[in-house]
Amino acid sequence: MSDLANGSGDSTETHEQGEPGRRDFLKGALLAGGAVASATAGAATVYAQAMQPGRVPGTTNHYHVPATDKTVHWGYFSKSLKPVVEVASGDFVTLEVLTHHANDDASRMITGDPGAESVFYWDRQRKGVDRRGAGPMQPTLFGRGAGEGLGVHICTGPVGVRGAEPGDILEVRIVDVKPRPCANPQYKGKSFGSNAAAWWGFHYKDLLTDPKPREVITIYEIDASGERNWARGVYNFQWTPQTDPFGVVHKTIDYPGVPVNHSTVKENHGVLKNVRIPIRPHFGVLGLAPSEADMVDSIPPNRVGGNIDDWRIGKGATMYYPVAVPGALLSAGDSHASQGDSELCGTAIECSLTGTFQLILHKRATLAGTALEGLAYPLLETQDDWVLHGFSYANYLVELGADAQSKIYEKSSIDLAMRDAFRKMRHFLMTTKGLTEDEAISLTSVAVDFGVTQVVDGNWGVHAIIKKNLFAGA
Amino acid sequence: MSDLANGSGDSTETHEQGEPGRRDFLKGALLAGGAVASATAGAATVYAQAMQPGRVPGTTNHYHVPATDKTVHWGYFSKSLKPVVEVASGDFVTLEVLTHHANDDASRMITGDPGAESVFYWDRQRKGVDRRGAGPMQPTLFGRGAGEGLGVHICTGPVGVRGAEPGDILEVRIVDVKPRPCANPQYKGKSFGSNAAAWWGFHYKDLLTDPKPREVITIYEIDASGERNWARGVYNFQWTPQTDPFGVVHKTIDYPGVPVNHSTVKENHGVLKNVRIPIRPHFGVLGLAPSEADMVDSIPPNRVGGNIDDWRIGKGATMYYPVAVPGALLSAGDSHASQGDSELCGTAIECSLTGTFQLILHKRATLAGTALEGLAYPLLETQDDWVLHGFSYANYLVELGADAQSKIYEKSSIDLAMRDAFRKMRHFLMTTKGLTEDEAISLTSVAVDFGVTQVVDGNWGVHAIIKKNLFAGA
Repeated sequence: MSDLANGSGDSTETHEQGEPGRRDFLKGALLAGGAVASATAGAATVYAQAMQPGRVPGTTNHYHVPATDKTVHWGYFSKSLKPVVEVASGDFVTLEVLTHHANDDASRMITGDPGAESVFYWDRQRKGVDRRGAGPMQPTLFGRGAGEGLGVHICTGPVGVRGAEPGDILEVRIVDVKPRPCANPQYKGKSFGSNAAAWWGFHYKDLLTDPKPREVITIYEIDASGERNWARGVYNFQWTPQTDPFGVVHKTIDYPGVPVNHSTVKENHGVLKNVRIPIRPHFGVLGLAPSEADMVDSIPPNRVGGNIDDWRIGKGATMYYPVAVPGALLSAGDSHASQGDSELCGTAIECSLTGTFQLILHKRATLAGTALEGLAYPLLETQDDWVLHGFSYANYLVELGADAQSKIYEKSSIDLAMRDAFRKMRHFLMTTKGLTEDEAISLTSVAVDFGVTQVVDGNWGVHAIIKKNLFAGA
Repeated sequence: MSDLANGSGDSTETHEQGEPGRRDFLKGALLAGGAVASATAGAATVYAQAMQPGRVPGTTNHYHVPATDKTVHWGYFSKSLKPVVEVASGDFVTLEVLTHHANDDASRMITGDPGAESVFYWDRQRKGVDRRGAGPMQPTLFGRGAGEGLGVHICTGPVGVRGAEPGDILEVRIVDVKPRPCANPQYKGKSFGSNAAAWWGFHYKDLLTDPKPREVITIYEIDASGERNWARGVYNFQWTPQTDPFGVVHKTIDYPGVPVNHSTVKENHGVLKNVRIPIRPHFGVLGLAPSEADMVDSIPPNRVGGNIDDWRIGKGATMYYPVAVPGALLSAGDSHASQGDSELCGTAIECSLTGTFQLILHKRATLAGTALEGLAYPLLETQDDWVLHGFSYANYLVELGADAQSKIYEKSSIDLAMRDAFRKMRHFLMTTKGLTEDEAISLTSVAVDFGVTQVVDGNWGVHAIIKKNLFAGA
């Protein structure tokens, strides 16, 4: 959809030192970025480039945001967060993303990794990142910890986009996704992820075998190069009450980042023997800061994205988000090595990943007559498909009133998400493709596939997929 | 899954003249069938075949069932129906299937086609097929017509399978699927289908534009050779009250096969201009006679199949059904040129098709230790996937009591169908693949894709897809 890429706006400034960017990394990246960026440059610039080899002047920079206790916000989105970097339209940004489940097996997912160690640091006196969730800092509600675990994802960012204003659309191209190699020499060349079959899973009250209920963690291994296309199970264990360094006992998985004391659990090795799980590296959380509230729980997805948990949001995909606050404020989290549609047991293979994104700002004034006009929901484009995301409540922060952030968990429904996905697909076909309502409805019935995105994030999801090649004959 | 194919049972009898088979057709088909059937023959037979070229003795016959007023049952399944043909395990049967929407445009879907004309025949005195639906023959409930339209699909069959008994599994291999060519010389080389955006559609009470509500028929065209892989829209029209030949006025699409008088509707030609819809020819209805009731509405899918409406049930796919009544009694109907997951507006591209099936009977005594042991639901196998079908109620005819056939329409829910699909996938992984419950649940979350099969058949559907190659390393 290259015709969408023209409203790129002000990309003339350069940023030799993005804080906390890495100077050497940037030098190489600027060259690499130039080729991609040329697709977004005007004809005159392209011509100038053709006359003189080299970088397209002033078009792109490439920023790097490592995951540290200073660059992440844990369990919430907020319009009040100061950007960790500010970029211009057309720029690239690499975001290191940590899984919030790394402490399920610290030796495989934290040990020796300075970034992860700084984020997960927790002794009797302090935590590397104290707030985890959108709840109160004094945990007066449940006594779980600061933020109360009302929101769980470690989000890297936010990235501010210069000139972005409410009403604009931010295009986020996912240029690359790589596993984060295990830093523990014992597991050289491997990466690991954790799957928690947890109390918020769809299965939890519906178990066949004893003990009931139970939470089970399964540790998966993937190849750190990202070249081997499958994961395998390593071992599983049943969650036992875990006492965190502050002395709080967590009988269930009710607060993110609690270190699991492996002397209290029984590791069953050799699980899922000979089973190869195709990997689908992607970001469960990718989205902008909402405008409706200041502190927003990272779990329910919303109109500006967030925890959509669609495994298609991986390498090569492009997301379009409506901008709700100045600067857009993009964050990434909840990285997954693989997930099935529904994320049934509550989590995917939760695995730290590093993603490289190109951000293109489409100013409101440039949207008229384009496919992005009136876009009020997160839209996914892949090479073959358009994917629209419906939720039980399209904009729950408004629809459910003052208590929206707790009410949403009582109102989870695939039936409602299907309704929302249908309405969004109809809107897309009537605006983007100029169909009548009758044409849009018939086409949806005979050619659009609806799937269950997730049934575990409070605001449940149904996605609608339409193949681009339906319109190739136009 | 060739190891499943050994319980084929008694296939030693030959049937030179299947009624109402066609002698010449069979001669060719017997030869064509031999190659496929050899895969199911025992090693000794294969060896005998290798010594002497020719047909494997007594292994397969091929029956043909044209669609006529004598070979179809319209709108219901019944264990009391006499088979139109009886076959042995391993035999092939070709079933001509007519769309029940053909009278939306009789000139394109009936005219000149003796089979279709006999089925749709309707004058002031009589109908070619009087009963349409599982309701009373005297239409005392709604006054729509015999059977009351409580069930709508024209089903060809049933096919009896010799030796099949409750507790056995019937494997149905879909060997070929072809469009039924239009018999009207005016449209030579084409086939047509109808999509009805009807009152039972998911969209019906949720329209944007006037008039509200409305029903809209869209006529689609495909290539009769089946070689062109896309359909296109021809025209649409809004449903107007139609008076049937008995004088009953149908304000909405409330009874199947009502002839549309095109002088009463406005045809809008040129709809969906330049849109090419990929075709996915398949059978919306394919399944066995249920045991729980005598007359069963053809609309809600159930544990022995029926109106599953999964577009994957097409050429190359294999279905496995639990047998509920002696002879199994397989019928096919509701043929579709294409459908999206959800069948949102109530129908697909409803289009007459002819399918060729090979039927393999797996006797109960041979199931122990195989993947089919304990199979209590319709299971789909494709080249790459296993697909399990969940419904709002897995066995609604029992679960909803005496009024099940009306209650099911009040209890439609994707949430419930998701629950059922999860339970079936867990069962499949724990039995077929020998996983523990914890392994099965984790694997489901990270590798199984759940989709919305349909939201229009009373007993709504969610399917669960698992790729076979996960287990290829074993």
